[in-house]
Amino acid sequence: MTQVDHTRMANAIRGLAMDAVEKANSGHPGLPMGAADIATVLFTKFLKFDAADTAWPDRDRFVLSAGHGSMLLYSLLYLTGNKDMTLDQLKHFRQLGSLTPGHPENFHTKGIETTTGPLGQGIATAVGMALAEKMLAAEFGKKIVNHHTYVLASDGDLMEGISQEAIALAGVWRLNKMIVLYDDNGISIDGPTSISDSVDQVKRFKSAGWAAELIDGHDPQAIAAAITRAQKSNKPSMIACKTTIGYGAPHKAGTAKAHGEALGADELKAAKEKLGISLEPFSVPDDVLKAWREAGARGAAEHKAWDEQFAQLGSRKRAEFERRIRHERPQSLAKGLRAFKKGLLENPLNVATRKSSEAAIEVIAAAMPMEFVAGSADLTGSNNNKAKSATAFGAKTPKGRFIHYGVREHGMAACLNGIFLHGGFAPNGATFLVFTDYARGAMRLSALMGTGVVYVMTHDSIGLGEDGPTHQPVEHLSALRAMPNMRVFRPCDAVETAECWELALNRVDGPTVLALTRQNLPQLRTTAPNDNPCSHGAYELVAAQGDAKVSLFASGSEVQIAVEAQKQLAGRGIATRVVSVPSLELLLAQPAERQNAIIGNAPVKIAIEAAVRWGWDAVIGHDGEFIGMHGFGASAPAKDLFPHFGITAEAVVNAATKRV
Amino acid sequence: MTQVDHTRMANAIRGLAMDAVEKANSGHPGLPMGAADIATVLFTKFLKFDAADTAWPDRDRFVLSAGHGSMLLYSLLYLTGNKDMTLDQLKHFRQLGSLTPGHPENFHTKGIETTTGPLGQGIATAVGMALAEKMLAAEFGKKIVNHHTYVLASDGDLMEGISQEAIALAGVWRLNKMIVLYDDNGISIDGPTSISDSVDQVKRFKSAGWAAELIDGHDPQAIAAAITRAQKSNKPSMIACKTTIGYGAPHKAGTAKAHGEALGADELKAAKEKLGISLEPFSVPDDVLKAWREAGARGAAEHKAWDEQFAQLGSRKRAEFERRIRHERPQSLAKGLRAFKKGLLENPLNVATRKSSEAAIEVIAAAMPMEFVAGSADLTGSNNNKAKSATAFGAKTPKGRFIHYGVREHGMAACLNGIFLHGGFAPNGATFLVFTDYARGAMRLSALMGTGVVYVMTHDSIGLGEDGPTHQPVEHLSALRAMPNMRVFRPCDAVETAECWELALNRVDGPTVLALTRQNLPQLRTTAPNDNPCSHGAYELVAAQGDAKVSLFASGSEVQIAVEAQKQLAGRGIATRVVSVPSLELLLAQPAERQNAIIGNAPVKIAIEAAVRWGWDAVIGHDGEFIGMHGFGASAPAKDLFPHFGITAEAVVNAATKRV
Repeated sequence: MTQVDHTRMANAIRGLAMDAVEKANSGHPGLPMGAADIATVLFTKFLKFDAADTAWPDRDRFVLSAGHGSMLLYSLLYLTGNKDMTLDQLKHFRQLGSLTPGHPENFHTKGIETTTGPLGQGIATAVGMALAEKMLAAEFGKKIVNHHTYVLASDGDLMEGISQEAIALAGVWRLNKMIVLYDDNGISIDGPTSISDSVDQVKRFKSAGWAAELIDGHDPQAIAAAITRAQKSNKPSMIACKTTIGYGAPHKAGTAKAHGEALGADELKAAKEKLGISLEPFSVPDDVLKAWREAGARGAAEHKAWDEQFAQLGSRKRAEFERRIRHERPQSLAKGLRAFKKGLLENPLNVATRKSSEAAIEVIAAAMPMEFVAGSADLTGSNNNKAKSATAFGAKTPKGRFIHYGVREHGMAACLNGIFLHGGFAPNGATFLVFTDYARGAMRLSALMGTGVVYVMTHDSIGLGEDGPTHQPVEHLSALRAMPNMRVFRPCDAVETAECWELALNRVDGPTVLALTRQNLPQLRTTAPNDNPCSHGAYELVAAQGDAKVSLFASGSEVQIAVEAQKQLAGRGIATRVVSVPSLELLLAQPAERQNAIIGNAPVKIAIEAAVRWGWDAVIGHDGEFIGMHGFGASAPAKDLFPHFGITAEAVVNAATKRV
Repeated sequence: MTQVDHTRMANAIRGLAMDAVEKANSGHPGLPMGAADIATVLFTKFLKFDAADTAWPDRDRFVLSAGHGSMLLYSLLYLTGNKDMTLDQLKHFRQLGSLTPGHPENFHTKGIETTTGPLGQGIATAVGMALAEKMLAAEFGKKIVNHHTYVLASDGDLMEGISQEAIALAGVWRLNKMIVLYDDNGISIDGPTSISDSVDQVKRFKSAGWAAELIDGHDPQAIAAAITRAQKSNKPSMIACKTTIGYGAPHKAGTAKAHGEALGADELKAAKEKLGISLEPFSVPDDVLKAWREAGARGAAEHKAWDEQFAQLGSRKRAEFERRIRHERPQSLAKGLRAFKKGLLENPLNVATRKSSEAAIEVIAAAMPMEFVAGSADLTGSNNNKAKSATAFGAKTPKGRFIHYGVREHGMAACLNGIFLHGGFAPNGATFLVFTDYARGAMRLSALMGTGVVYVMTHDSIGLGEDGPTHQPVEHLSALRAMPNMRVFRPCDAVETAECWELALNRVDGPTVLALTRQNLPQLRTTAPNDNPCSHGAYELVAAQGDAKVSLFASGSEVQIAVEAQKQLAGRGIATRVVSVPSLELLLAQPAERQNAIIGNAPVKIAIEAAVRWGWDAVIGHDGEFIGMHGFGASAPAKDLFPHFGITAEAVVNAATKRV
């Protein structure tokens, strides 16, 4: 083991970070310089990882919640010997195509656990990872699953509201293997944090059930001692590490000037001289690099030991673990859902889609009882996503697979990302569709990272009724459809709901929103072909008798209105077809030929959706008729609201006859 | 003064709430029954209000953050003698058109300070109100502005992350006239809060710089004593009032069953018998009603005294105060901006629109120095919305008109609502456009309530560059355009930026997003007509030479690309016009004739926007060409990203020539 002084090890990070930001003339040198001591202690003495295998399931997770300090992470990856992270990559920091983008992107660079940058997301995602660790350990045993989740968080992370949701959850769940290292540098972009903050973070974390203490973040002994104490705690731990941002920069250290821009040639030179770092850009002394590489290889023995333990598991258990980590679904899932759909055709289920979703969930949970992890932001009885067999997860019930998130939509969404990224589970979380507004920060990261999480969003329109416009989504379908890689399904009945659940669970490279009704709906589907018609986003549900004069497009609860209107129009001799559109954006992503075939060429096109028109013109044209919402909803029983807002079969018939 | 026992007063609330929910067979009886004692003490002994004039500027603000307990508020309005709130309205709770919707709607019912229901919004909006009080008092003196802001908050409110942002801000600003009454009933929809929460709220608030204590929420003396202490505190105060949800219901009290549904006939009867309330629905004993009405008239004398104080202000000061409260803009604003635009034509400003916005703000702040309240979520230097003359607001600098919100976008947006609702200010807040995702819950309430707040959202596309996809909005323009009553402007140059600022400030019945670039842009406009072409959402910026074969539509930074493409196409003999579209949804809200005139009938329509296509088909048709983003961005210098994603004049020219 090469013996190198701690400070020289830490200064290697500082030097690389300064150089990379300087070369890019863009980036954040302050955090890597300030947190280098913390990271050095963590990565050389505590973090269980094997640089040669970033996918080792039992590695400790390290989350750089303060994603702007990405050069800290890239430096660590390079120094510890990550194969992909060459010096050349560091030299191309923040350049097109490099593995070193402005903020860490897990979908782009191996060795990065989650994408961070939007503050607060890292710490909240880490809660999901620590939760997944606890759940998986309860199932497969501590010999197979036994790792820590470390987070480096900044002042900004702890200002974001999502951080409160996250720490409250970690506290009540007693996620004692989660350790937050708070880079307590007292500086944010606008200046000293005192201009906008007076929170005592140690007291705050303690109030949420954490162990918390304040230490000198530049004292390696103090850092090591605090991490050791944290590892022994029966609570999650927060270590407030008092640091100096831009540590070592003679004029900018301790100020906002060190935060988010290159130091400049003079300050960089002065900093390097002060720290005793070579002025040669991107140079790391041989002995220091050697010591770092040894730290990176440190986990290889543990990894090997783990492999041996894993080999001792029964072959079925091993296969199950590996399948789960790969996010592969069990064969029993497709089989179960096929039988379920067949049953629906025999015994139609004329209930709200949140209820047909509940029925589908019974089938899904039977196929994957320990991996299907559902949860709700305090609307369990309304969201209907709890399988009968599911029990509540809790500090003392780690085998529970239903999570009560409390009223914390944003924290829930970030947890879902963390659970998925950890591996081993197919997580879904539920609330009312309107509250996707609260969760959107994390939902966007689901889409960007491509996590296969499912958002069970019930009460998906004015059909929610009496709770009124604050609770009635009107623009949310559109706003979610606009998000790249987000799939929105709004099934019209029990059969479509089962089909959409199947598509959602098999989508492991991106998130899915299931928008479900509060109110009852008739089962409209009379077939359930194996090729899953929802997979193209839309399909002809009712053909016209003869050449169609009118095409009706609708989703969810409005498909029944389209079907009723079709009958009335047919009665008047107007040949009309109905296209069910469970996923508008998926329809619009189909090849032109298929799109055209589904959309058809009836001269009159009418879309019906109890939501805003935004986006629908792609199907019906700007001169098409739209029967839907033109503003916010209102508080009243749902049966009064649909006529009040003119969303009825009669309105459709009138619009159609006017145009034919 | 009619003397009536406290409990009988409180039971009047309980009875009305039970009856209204029962009649609607929908709603939340638990909170009004549990918090009736708190509300009775507050409204009969402390709250400064005059039921005869709900618009009295110096009234205390009462915010029911737990909006689901709306029957508490409606009962109080009725009991204290609010003219509109008749018994008949209570009988039509949650029915179409009644003044008693499911959740309190300030834009619908007089006497309600803000719309609540989405949890956490009330407490955060109240911080904005208390902030506005402090700012206005510093300006007009304590004889004119001197009131408290009271909040009734629930467990759910305090679980939402936005509550942490709010209490941190109130703490650092020492908003000691803000008093939160926490209905600490330990129950949420899913059951006891202990299943998802272990936060010690008293300790949590103390950690954020609040005075906080725990009391018996059914003991009127304890409540009164705590409020008295809170009024004397030099910090904001939180009083955790331990209560029983559904107090009085013999079987359901203290359980989630009392939370969100009618008690049912039997339990209602039993509760009334236990509480000693008449079984006759909606009946309040005469003496009790009389005592309540006296409480409602209690403030009339104070109101009169205030009127006298106000009359003693100089006439200019009075007029200024009244104009400000009415949200009327000073005449100097229009004049100043007109001169500014004229100046721009003489000396073009070829800078980023965030910089031209900064220049416009100098003019605006000069016209309304004390009422233009800007702020940023820790991106002041990047958002460029701080006037040179503006100083920072703080606990000791209440005349400061620039607010450092810290990294708290959601809290900031809710504060903006509160500042506007309080009256006296034209508030705006800034962050990067991508972080509207964090603020969307409060932004939706801006749109629903129609608050005239301005969101200054800079770094509005991949033009942001190196920070990468986590920081580059692509779907946000569309997602915001989809929201009813939200206006999105994306100006293309300095002249449009000034025009959009003017429209935003004059829009006092709804919020405006100004989407501004990080990167420099040429000034394209050569005229600044008085009728403000941006007011129609779009206009022809460059006419075609001859009959247009191609129409190019673009917003913001892509208008320059359209202009360049227009030149190249003209050079090839293809007559092309350019339509600048600062507000796509405003264009689509124009009467058909104007819309058609602006969109024109060139056979080839191309839209150019460094964002997703979603929504643009309304202008260009589904077969139109779109030059923009088809997924998330990437980390690289902006100059590399536009060609990388094919958003260039050459791409436009190619698309056009292919189609002509």
